Amino acid sequence: MTEKKLLIVSGTHGNEINPIWAVEKFKNLNNLDPKDNNLEFILGNPNACEKGLRYIDIDLNRSFNIKRTSINENLYEINRAEFLLNNFGSNGYNPCNIVFDLHTTTSSMGTSLVIYGRRKKDFYLAAILQNKFGLPIYLHEKDHNQTGFLVEAWPSGLVLEIGPVAQNHYDAEIIERFIVILNFLRCLIEDFETSIMHLPSEIVVYVHQNSIDYPRDKNFNINAVIHPDRINKDWLEIKKGVPLFLDNFGENINYKGQESVYPVFIGEAAYREKNIAMSFTKKETIQCSQTWFQEFFN
Amino acid sequence: MTEKKLLIVSGTHGNEINPIWAVEKFKNLNNLDPKDNNLEFILGNPNACEKGLRYIDIDLNRSFNIKRTSINENLYEINRAEFLLNNFGSNGYNPCNIVFDLHTTTSSMGTSLVIYGRRKKDFYLAAILQNKFGLPIYLHEKDHNQTGFLVEAWPSGLVLEIGPVAQNHYDAEIIERFIVILNFLRCLIEDFETSIMHLPSEIVVYVHQNSIDYPRDKNFNINAVIHPDRINKDWLEIKKGVPLFLDNFGENINYKGQESVYPVFIGEAAYREKNIAMSFTKKETIQCSQTWFQEFFN
Repeated sequence: MTEKKLLIVSGTHGNEINPIWAVEKFKNLNNLDPKDNNLEFILGNPNACEKGLRYIDIDLNRSFNIKRTSINENLYEINRAEFLLNNFGSNGYNPCNIVFDLHTTTSSMGTSLVIYGRRKKDFYLAAILQNKFGLPIYLHEKDHNQTGFLVEAWPSGLVLEIGPVAQNHYDAEIIERFIVILNFLRCLIEDFETSIMHLPSEIVVYVHQNSIDYPRDKNFNINAVIHPDRINKDWLEIKKGVPLFLDNFGENINYKGQESVYPVFIGEAAYREKNIAMSFTKKETIQCSQTWFQEFFN
Repeated sequence: MTEKKLLIVSGTHGNEINPIWAVEKFKNLNNLDPKDNNLEFILGNPNACEKGLRYIDIDLNRSFNIKRTSINENLYEINRAEFLLNNFGSNGYNPCNIVFDLHTTTSSMGTSLVIYGRRKKDFYLAAILQNKFGLPIYLHEKDHNQTGFLVEAWPSGLVLEIGPVAQNHYDAEIIERFIVILNFLRCLIEDFETSIMHLPSEIVVYVHQNSIDYPRDKNFNINAVIHPDRINKDWLEIKKGVPLFLDNFGENINYKGQESVYPVFIGEAAYREKNIAMSFTKKETIQCSQTWFQEFFN
């Protein structure tokens, strides 16, 4: 069985400050000996953290598939992504084969997981966490506008996404939610050495379908906000005719799709610049497989 | 009776986007004729709004007492403050004698008013609004670290502060709360021409005493967050011994003052850089005076 080393990344977005805090508190409470465990910790984007910004030049969490060229070599995040991979990538100086990237959202996602594509190793970890905590899983795939996520650059990696919490706003309850998961991951990574984890028979995932932008006027200015009936209703099914937006004349703009969907990241503040008001998902049940386990420890 | 012209400022902080939206919706819904009313609207800090930042160089809402010098003349907000005063100040091209500056906060302040010092004209307006809507009033005075607020540069001016809402996050219910007040102000400014407003016998204000910083370690890094018992409890009385912060070892840090106080702006995200975790106030009842009315229309 291959030894597993888990990299915990906080501050990949510099204005998501609660995971950074949670990691410090977790380290204090556990009195971790750096030589004595299978955990590594790193601040994803220290310069952005210093400034309280999501990023300095470009979104670090969309930069892990960007080749460094003479044109982009001065962008801070291009260099930072390279640094992280050189140090903690599976072929790095201090190789880690699993990564957990800790994020917060302004949306009411609760404590949730995001996985990118259908990697069996990720399914394995996600299944253990969903089985233990009932966490909803957002399976992000086939979105050509959103690529280059940090966790995709490791053999296995999940995003832990907790909200709602404002950017640059400390919230002790949100911090506690991170610590619950960190404590579990610490035990999990130790147990990996000695035991086979029990998997449930199936997991439920919310599979990304498409994202929708805010309604806009002819000058491309946003002219409707998330409808009060929709805000803070992440993960809840919507059907044709329900209001999505409220325009600035007080009129509703409704969902027109024939099929019901489950919106996520509703009104996420950081996604406005990406022209995303919310993302639609469909629910899918996936049978767990013992091959996930074999793949994971391959 | 002097004619009154009311200036409504939104976007004084570029990441407080709901007031900007509320003003646009208010204008749409009311079909305002620019020539036909006593209202003026202006975006406080358009460059910061464009970038979704609180400010570009310095906080515009602390810049109205800063004299322009050869050293600071390139700072965007120094020039913007001058522009606003040249255009809409009481001696400007388009003079306004009252200003309402619309803000949001990440703290749970509800819909509230902030007044700066004890100007009778401000008391007059605050009394009318408290009487109508029951709004709490934060009276900010004698804080030498926080000066140069926009509304202080006009003969009369109040801040309307609504929260909690994340920065750069649209919230239709927060927008609606602004519109309720804007509708009332519109009627009020029209009524000023024709009627004497009824004042209550007294108003209750929360008078600024001092602000406290987050606990910090020897490197001046914050090492405790707002306690879960304290977060979202703005305006509520606290007594000696109640927890204020939770440190990163899980220990409480308690309020040690002998006198009970009422904290406000608890955990406001934008105040971390100002070394403010919360501000303490004391409750004071002020008898309303008919001289306020005379002063107002002087």
